[in-house]
Parts: sequence; structure tokens; C-alpha cells
Amino acid sequence: MGNIMAVIPAAGIGSRMGSGIKKQYLMLGNMPILARTIRAMEDNPEIQGIVLVVGPGEEAYCRDYILAGKAFSKVMAVVPGGDHRQSSVYNGLSFLPGETQLVLIHDGARPLVQPGEISRVIEAAREVGAAALAVPLKDTVKVVDCRGWVQSTPPRESLWAVQTPQVFRYGIIMEAHRKAREAGLLATDDCALVEFLGGPVKLVAGSYENIKITTPEDLVLAEAFLSRRRG
Amino acid sequence: MGNIMAVIPAAGIGSRMGSGIKKQYLMLGNMPILARTIRAMEDNPEIQGIVLVVGPGEEAYCRDYILAGKAFSKVMAVVPGGDHRQSSVYNGLSFLPGETQLVLIHDGARPLVQPGEISRVIEAAREVGAAALAVPLKDTVKVVDCRGWVQSTPPRESLWAVQTPQVFRYGIIMEAHRKAREAGLLATDDCALVEFLGGPVKLVAGSYENIKITTPEDLVLAEAFLSRRRG
Repeated sequence: MGNIMAVIPAAGIGSRMGSGIKKQYLMLGNMPILARTIRAMEDNPEIQGIVLVVGPGEEAYCRDYILAGKAFSKVMAVVPGGDHRQSSVYNGLSFLPGETQLVLIHDGARPLVQPGEISRVIEAAREVGAAALAVPLKDTVKVVDCRGWVQSTPPRESLWAVQTPQVFRYGIIMEAHRKAREAGLLATDDCALVEFLGGPVKLVAGSYENIKITTPEDLVLAEAFLSRRRG
Repeated sequence: MGNIMAVIPAAGIGSRMGSGIKKQYLMLGNMPILARTIRAMEDNPEIQGIVLVVGPGEEAYCRDYILAGKAFSKVMAVVPGGDHRQSSVYNGLSFLPGETQLVLIHDGARPLVQPGEISRVIEAAREVGAAALAVPLKDTVKVVDCRGWVQSTPPRESLWAVQTPQVFRYGIIMEAHRKAREAGLLATDDCALVEFLGGPVKLVAGSYENIKITTPEDLVLAEAFLSRRRG
């Protein structure tokens, strides 16, 4: 089955939340968002270890407030993040043991990912080397120039919004991150770094409920999804 | 200033709502969604007349339940829709008087559009001939083939999700609809028909609150936006 590790980047500053508390530390139901995300990873029997990446200086807060008393058994380390998401992920990846075979990267602010979704992405990455959860775009999208003139309307069926988890063979994603650092390339997701190297990436159909919580309304929506699951 | 008319397509079947009542007739706050949408158009002093397009056979229901007692003064007609959104819009457009200069097309299920947004799209269409409200995409988008292999990651800053209102010179949008019918072309928005003819289309920055209500969670979200506006 191989050695599967998870990296959870949770170092975002959450400026869009308009709250004194960073988004990943806010409560969703009876548990902080980040704790709920860690729980989803803990509950997957294939994942053997978790590295949490938090804002520099927040390690102790995270241990005392997010981890304490939750009986998490797989969290190996809480490491400080970098200047942006990509460098935070790199810090987490660098901490993993060399014998890691697959690494799963999952946003700390996506607590609603379901067990079956995690397993399906792992399965695809095992076959292909790089895979991510994604959903078809519901919006009609326009490609525009910098002045707002429409250039084209790409066919909607070819456009997917990528989520996390994104799962990779460890060697592939480490090489992709190192090459991106050398080239000064910054991407909004880890798959893009593998694409930059020409590697194949497969998308796996996920759910619209697996939202990244970044605004107060996302939190309202997450509460609605959660209460529907309970009802 | 010229003659500005609005067409509101509200003939969708709302199958994603999982409710016996069609989405546009559900309550949002103290008013049905569609009534709230009509109110937003009524309140704009530039719009002189409104044509409502509803599911065939629903005209009386709409008059009795949505329009009655609301003191709407601009609704000129309630006309039956066609097999799909595009033919419904065409039915509405065809009803308009020939001297119409600009026509505003706005989804019946987008009740949260703001007065300033409507005016800005009208202003742009007056200059350019065709304009629509839109917001930058927040998601990282992948272009995929039919088997889920990632082809590319377009630069996020060039991708916008188009909304409504979409506003057009009457002659331009009528010609675009007629040509699309001749060519058997179906599009998910009206701008695409103008693009098909090679006409310029300008996007105007809108708000993430101007959502189209299609799922139960959209309704939860709309309630949250509405209560924030009140609070």
C-alpha cells in the first residue's frame, strides 16, 4: 500500500474574513475549522502521518487550542509556514521522511471533504502520479483582456474548478516544488507546478460541498452543509 | 436617454432545488425571489418597461401570486417561455416595441443585484452596444479533456464569471438571437451570441453577492447576504 503522508497548509492570514481570528481557527459547529480538517485526515486509514503548517509564531497556539484534547494520533509536526501558500507547502513537504511514497496536500480551510473523496484521489495518484479533486464550473466564464473586453467564452464542459486534496508521488512533487523555486514560479495550486514540468495530472470528480472557507458567507454555507449532513 | 426595457427570464424548471415549488417562486425574506428581482428592476428609474417570461401555463399563477398586491407599475406583459433559456429570452425580446433602444436581460433568480450595478451595465452598453456584469473567478480553473486529464491552467486574472444583467442595443441582440436560431446555436448566456457575430462585449465589475439561486444552499447564502444588508 505504501507510505502516505498528509501536509495541511494552514498559514493563510484570512484577511477576507474580516474577523480578528484567522479563518482556520474559527468555529464550525462544535469544532475549529482546522481541527475538523485534521479529523478528516485522521479518519482516513491510508494516511499514516500529518504535517501541519501554520503561521510563524502560531505553533504553540495551534498545539494548545487546535490539537489539545482532540486525541489526534497522526500529527507528526507543526511547522512554520513561509511568505505564501507555495512556500508553506514546501516547508511541510521538506519535513516528510524520505521513504514517503505518496503525499496528500489539503487546505486547512476545507473541513468538509468526505472520506470517499480522499480515497479516490489517493487511488488516482497511485496510478498516475498526480491527481486532484475538482468540480465542473457552474458559471459561464469569459476570458477577458486587462481592460474588460471579452476575448472568448470557453466551452463550459471543459472547465473544472480544482480543489484539494491534491495527491502526488513524493518524488514528483518535491522535484516540481524545487524547480518552481529555481524558476521563481508561483502558482495557486500544486498541480500547476507538476503541469509546468510536463507531468500528467488527473482530475477526480468531487463535491460542491468541499468549499474553502475564506469569507463570512462561506462559513454560513459550511454550517448549512454540516447541518444537512446531520439532519 | 432612450427607451430602456427589461426582459426577465423566469421559466427555469429549478430541478436542482429539490423542492416542489420552482426556485423563482420560493420565499427570500418576506418576498418570493422573483418578486424581489422585479422590484430591483422597478426601482431603477432608467428602466421603463418589464417583460416577464415564465413557464408555459404559469402566467396566471405568476400574476396572482408574484405580481398581485405588489404595486409593480412597469410590468408590461407576462409571456410564456420556450424549451430552454435562450428561446425564453427570445420570446421576451420579440414582445418588445420596435422603438426600444436598449434591452436589459436579467435572470429571475438573481434577486440581490444592486441599483448601482444595474446602472453601470446600462452605461457600458450605451457606449459599446453589449455589456454584462461579471466577477473575477476565485477558483483555480483547469482546462480538461473529456477523460479528466488536465490540459492547462489558464491565468486566473483573465477569467471572469459572467452574471446578469446583460444589456444590449436592441438591434444587436435581436440580430444575434435570430442568427443563433438559424445556426442552431445554443449558448449559456446572451453575450455569447453577440460574440458569435463578432461584436464587442464589455464586462463590468459586479459583486459576489449577485448570485443565481439554484440550490437550497444558494438560498441559505442569499438569506445571509440579505440579513447583512439589513443589519
